[in-house]
Amino acid sequence: MSEELNPHLRLLLGPGPSPVHPRILKAMSTHVVGHLDPDFLSVMDDCQVMLRDLFNTENQVTFPVSGTGSAAMEASVCNIVEPGDKAIICVNGVFGGRMSDVASRYGADVVTVEAPWGQPIDPGDVKAALDANPDAVMVGLVHAETSTGVLQPMEEIGAMCREHGALLLLDCVTSLGGVPVELDKWGVEVAYSGTQKCLACPPGVAPVTFSERALGKVRERKSKVTSWYFDVSMVEKYWGNERVYHHTGPISMNYAIREALRIIFDEGLEARFARHALASKALQAGVEALGLSMFAQEGARTPTLNTVALKDGMDDGAVRKSLLNDFNIEIGGGLGAVAGKIWRVGMMGHGATQANVVYLLSALEVIFSKLGYITRTGDGVGAATQVYADAAS
Amino acid sequence: MSEELNPHLRLLLGPGPSPVHPRILKAMSTHVVGHLDPDFLSVMDDCQVMLRDLFNTENQVTFPVSGTGSAAMEASVCNIVEPGDKAIICVNGVFGGRMSDVASRYGADVVTVEAPWGQPIDPGDVKAALDANPDAVMVGLVHAETSTGVLQPMEEIGAMCREHGALLLLDCVTSLGGVPVELDKWGVEVAYSGTQKCLACPPGVAPVTFSERALGKVRERKSKVTSWYFDVSMVEKYWGNERVYHHTGPISMNYAIREALRIIFDEGLEARFARHALASKALQAGVEALGLSMFAQEGARTPTLNTVALKDGMDDGAVRKSLLNDFNIEIGGGLGAVAGKIWRVGMMGHGATQANVVYLLSALEVIFSKLGYITRTGDGVGAATQVYADAAS
Repeated sequence: MSEELNPHLRLLLGPGPSPVHPRILKAMSTHVVGHLDPDFLSVMDDCQVMLRDLFNTENQVTFPVSGTGSAAMEASVCNIVEPGDKAIICVNGVFGGRMSDVASRYGADVVTVEAPWGQPIDPGDVKAALDANPDAVMVGLVHAETSTGVLQPMEEIGAMCREHGALLLLDCVTSLGGVPVELDKWGVEVAYSGTQKCLACPPGVAPVTFSERALGKVRERKSKVTSWYFDVSMVEKYWGNERVYHHTGPISMNYAIREALRIIFDEGLEARFARHALASKALQAGVEALGLSMFAQEGARTPTLNTVALKDGMDDGAVRKSLLNDFNIEIGGGLGAVAGKIWRVGMMGHGATQANVVYLLSALEVIFSKLGYITRTGDGVGAATQVYADAAS
Repeated sequence: MSEELNPHLRLLLGPGPSPVHPRILKAMSTHVVGHLDPDFLSVMDDCQVMLRDLFNTENQVTFPVSGTGSAAMEASVCNIVEPGDKAIICVNGVFGGRMSDVASRYGADVVTVEAPWGQPIDPGDVKAALDANPDAVMVGLVHAETSTGVLQPMEEIGAMCREHGALLLLDCVTSLGGVPVELDKWGVEVAYSGTQKCLACPPGVAPVTFSERALGKVRERKSKVTSWYFDVSMVEKYWGNERVYHHTGPISMNYAIREALRIIFDEGLEARFARHALASKALQAGVEALGLSMFAQEGARTPTLNTVALKDGMDDGAVRKSLLNDFNIEIGGGLGAVAGKIWRVGMMGHGATQANVVYLLSALEVIFSKLGYITRTGDGVGAATQVYADAAS
């Protein structure tokens, strides 16, 4: 017989899950009601109202999908794409690549627009792809690439897509709740996120939103959406006023996201984004003071996920293993093309604090000393502390 | 700003979610670790070992899908079916119908074998369908139909399917953990369940299992599985020894199912099944003593989900509304063809107790008196109590 659950108390500074706010753990331990109970319908309503505010959208169809972030990606893509549709997908990391795989599984004729890992997508390249593919039904883009730490500038692409009649679909998994997300202003028609990043909530549900224009494409489909579970034409009838049973959703995880959203609006969006930006700035200052450099291109870095380039001779495995085993700190390694070459440090949600920044840097200094990567300690934590001192004065 | 979460404390005696065991709520409030943390890998291992025992299978690939029961249905079907494959689906209620919809969305040429709602599928009809469709790749069957309360006898169908080279796929959503499920003995190749029924756990993950023969069909596919999220050829590499990241799973819900499984094996399967059977027997005795009759055919009733036929002139809405508002009890109404005609009373997991049976009957007697359906009280609760008295002596 297995023993009572007793995991280590980790500090989660990887690419997610991020540290969960205790109020959310408390909400999750609340007694369960039925998925058609008036009390649960009111939980659903609260989630929708707050998600619209967080996404900065008027989209009526805005709700948490009954799965994790990748489920929300699939739900977004599979409703829009019909077999044979042309889809332009921007790929500058793992998650753009995943979106391209999902779209092509659902029958899309995928055209990719690429940028090197660590750099944002060039809007000019998107325009060229739209010009060359006037029949494209969508453009898929990642706002914050969890594999590279790049934050995509969003000023121009939405207008280009509207001009060409293509729907802009945005991955906000690692941005929502940590940096401004302004869907309606940017002309985004479909977007999705996860909860285990800047919402400081465990994974288990994942926000999506569809504009009226996007729903128009869904309603004009010639064939049913291949996925029954993610078919928004049915799911929206449960989340909307009709309340028609579709599937039993994860009640407790909806409790969790509701509490996560309440915490976000208790703090206020501006204060929250400033806290993320400051933690990232301090972390970067510390990392650079240790002689390391950031991987993502300057000016296009998301504060929520900070990518650090390893120097030649550094032992990725040894450092991360020691962080986990000796300090109970989780950070992420590189994925795919940059495996072994970068570290991914999340400053997300409840985790983006001065305490976490200085503890991580202090732990890294101890490990780096031991491994002979640095000859004296204090530079990293000192530089990070100075950033907080400057901000306080 | 929305208020602190404070739902009514309901007694969940509908078709699910069922009452959640407090040990599970406690497990869900445990601090979160990463999806590749050694501590989480060991949670995953525990879940797999216990799920195999509960399904009575040696299948290596046995794990909880990152979604609810309908996600597990989709994961089961979409991996097996390729466009153009012939699939025989047995339909005697809503969930067989749903399986048929899912299979056809994934491109299957669906042949249905039907039985009237409230009756089990006739194995002779399955044999006839297999004889008429020797190229069928699968037979889909529901073990316990949540819409009708029918428990499907499982003695013959597996052997028929093997003889014809078709994979038997079984929906165990409302049976697993409440009645014996013996996949290997029955010749079932793919099965799935939910957690919010007889596992007494909130919805949010959902068990699936694939036999080696079923995985053979997956490995011989000519095309990728349309769903990326549910593609078992990738997901099994995360749950298996390779531990290759696929998607971030719902950590806390995996904590929950692990605790649910521990509770099940603490109680013991035989004791658990006997408890469910006794609660159902007592409930039926009480219902019949009130002059009502059961909807599902005698001899083919699942103790986990008891369907009661309304008598002419009874007001479905008034009774269920009063149960909810005056007694905090949730029971289910009929779905589809039997909407307004039956009630569905779950005796599932932690909820299958003498206390719940007699409280529900007592509440019904109060309501029935008020509405003039009965002229004296005590017959229902008395009959149910007698069943427990007989069992105790």
